[in-house]
Amino acid sequence: MIYAAILGFGVVGSGTAQVLEQRKHDLDPSIGLKYILDLREFPDSPFRSLLVRDFGIIEQDPEVSVVIETIGGVGAAYEFTRRSLMAGKSVVTSNKELVATHGPELMALAKEHGCAYLFEASVGGGIPVLGPIQNCLSGGEITQVRGIINGTTNYILTRMLREGAEYEAVLKDAQALGYAERDPSADVDGLDAGRKISILASLCFGHYIHPDTVSIRGIREIRREDTALLGEAGYELKLLGRSYRQGERIAAYVAPHAVPRDSLLASIHGVTNAVEVLGKSVGSVLFAGPGAGSLPTASAVVGDVIELSRHPGAEYKPFWTRESAVTPIPEEEIAGAWILRVAAGTRIPETELLASQGGYDALLTRRINRRKMEEITRGATVFAAYRVLD
Amino acid sequence: MIYAAILGFGVVGSGTAQVLEQRKHDLDPSIGLKYILDLREFPDSPFRSLLVRDFGIIEQDPEVSVVIETIGGVGAAYEFTRRSLMAGKSVVTSNKELVATHGPELMALAKEHGCAYLFEASVGGGIPVLGPIQNCLSGGEITQVRGIINGTTNYILTRMLREGAEYEAVLKDAQALGYAERDPSADVDGLDAGRKISILASLCFGHYIHPDTVSIRGIREIRREDTALLGEAGYELKLLGRSYRQGERIAAYVAPHAVPRDSLLASIHGVTNAVEVLGKSVGSVLFAGPGAGSLPTASAVVGDVIELSRHPGAEYKPFWTRESAVTPIPEEEIAGAWILRVAAGTRIPETELLASQGGYDALLTRRINRRKMEEITRGATVFAAYRVLD
Repeated sequence: MIYAAILGFGVVGSGTAQVLEQRKHDLDPSIGLKYILDLREFPDSPFRSLLVRDFGIIEQDPEVSVVIETIGGVGAAYEFTRRSLMAGKSVVTSNKELVATHGPELMALAKEHGCAYLFEASVGGGIPVLGPIQNCLSGGEITQVRGIINGTTNYILTRMLREGAEYEAVLKDAQALGYAERDPSADVDGLDAGRKISILASLCFGHYIHPDTVSIRGIREIRREDTALLGEAGYELKLLGRSYRQGERIAAYVAPHAVPRDSLLASIHGVTNAVEVLGKSVGSVLFAGPGAGSLPTASAVVGDVIELSRHPGAEYKPFWTRESAVTPIPEEEIAGAWILRVAAGTRIPETELLASQGGYDALLTRRINRRKMEEITRGATVFAAYRVLD
Repeated sequence: MIYAAILGFGVVGSGTAQVLEQRKHDLDPSIGLKYILDLREFPDSPFRSLLVRDFGIIEQDPEVSVVIETIGGVGAAYEFTRRSLMAGKSVVTSNKELVATHGPELMALAKEHGCAYLFEASVGGGIPVLGPIQNCLSGGEITQVRGIINGTTNYILTRMLREGAEYEAVLKDAQALGYAERDPSADVDGLDAGRKISILASLCFGHYIHPDTVSIRGIREIRREDTALLGEAGYELKLLGRSYRQGERIAAYVAPHAVPRDSLLASIHGVTNAVEVLGKSVGSVLFAGPGAGSLPTASAVVGDVIELSRHPGAEYKPFWTRESAVTPIPEEEIAGAWILRVAAGTRIPETELLASQGGYDALLTRRINRRKMEEITRGATVFAAYRVLD
């Protein structure tokens, strides 16, 4: 029997309480939920008797060995995580911002105090991604990781393509349905995907990629003419987080990509997320599933808690450290093919016509970096330029 | 530093030696390959100095703590696995037949002797599947597992649909290309998929499903008229292994299914494999990648060896035991919708016309079991009947 406390009784926190309750009788060793920290009152919740407002109660209870942090952000979450680890309590979290920003420090602190900092739920919600990368895929050298790691933007792009709808209209709808926040910038500007690719890249390559060094481009400027024209050319438009080795350097960025329709990533629609890992031996492996949501994310959180309960006292080495931080290659320098949307009949040297639709042409460049792409298109009117996934 | 021996220097064994050699300098703790057991000679292999013919040398070397069994089958592989475990050496394998047939006994033997029996590579080749199910997905109750777990048959079905080709012609081609064995029965009759679904079902539900109790149907009888007609109706024809709980009972079978084109499993083409796990909390999670091949499978084998090297002395409980064996529900009793291929214009009560092509109609039934399906079609000429994936 081990005892756990949940910090923050929001979407993920309440889901976690629910999953722990459902599984109460079939977990071995069993996991007892002892406290839930929240400042709000929940008079109708079946868990109301567990609510406390003072973190000190949890911190000082020697029976609690696992703290589940689902507060989010880098304020109270950061402080309580530090204090939990310093008290020798392992921390499990879904908080990607905290992991991306302070992960190396918190993993070091955990090691120093003989406990663990685990965060499977921070990337890909309910999809097991970090665990398989850390364990099963460790057999062969990883060369690249890329994925659709933000459900809101994928939902918007999927509907734009299917319905020929305009960005603003779909966004409004997504907000009404609860798939997008009232202030959607963290999603649509690529910030959320940037944090997740920072975590994925750090784990895959063992070097810390700070989220502030990840170049991000979002989907605000995408027009329905783009999704329609790319569709005509045999591509889906997807916001991808992407990171790979280039010699001794690492590239990490978020940008909309033209994804060939026969690629598995092109089949990932709506709020589904997917992460693809390329390795020297394994080729390509894809993980897909619900990237967010209360119960899926909670099931990943509980998975980490179960791992801790099964291996009490196991030593966890930091998955990456601050000392091995690398500066990613600037996005402008990363080479690849591009698809340009131009007015029908526009000629640009060294490009090939892919498709025409609604008065526009899709032109394909050879493999060049952004600087070179801007150079060859100088003087021409280019409405949009998308990297092609290769 | 830990020392390993490989039993069997075939496709997977030689790939494993190669991956261990490639990763020699970046594994911590490092893994030394000390012996390779094979009766054949390999005068040109860089590993020839490690070759031994007498298993006793490995068995009696106290330095060897991990034995990698890639012999296959249930003869020498079974004997050497038993003797390794009894000598306290952990065994890692890609041998699905042995795991499906003797897994419970071998896991119990490992536990008794304080070592482990690990077999990630036995299902889905290089795709991490068993580890994530055992660890990350343990947070929520699993309700169903299903997948394309045989690359040869998926390759044949993909080409039949794309080229409108006939089964025998594609099979011959697949044999020439090395994707199918000279005697293809283990693949095309569903035996290989049956062993894998036996392992997946046992792991997901914690009860032993013996492979002999899994009902199997293969793809020999599929005609190009089937793939074409189903394509017209919006489905891909896929050979699926499938297992799910139905109350206190478990269903486990292999059969060709009509998979709706908007399902992720329908996007899995060629020799790629994919396993989809459905859970109460997580919804649906899909793992896809190379289901076979020397280096992908080797990378999964090495992943298991790395896990052992990281957690020396860890206790592994059997993932399932012989004592909890259950008899699956007979396939005839499993209810679901069916698509029937009949001559154009054929009327069958309680069915709905889905599509017509080349003189045939595709009729959809409501959810009925095989017995009931055979009852309603009695008297009519039904050329083929496929379960619909729901």
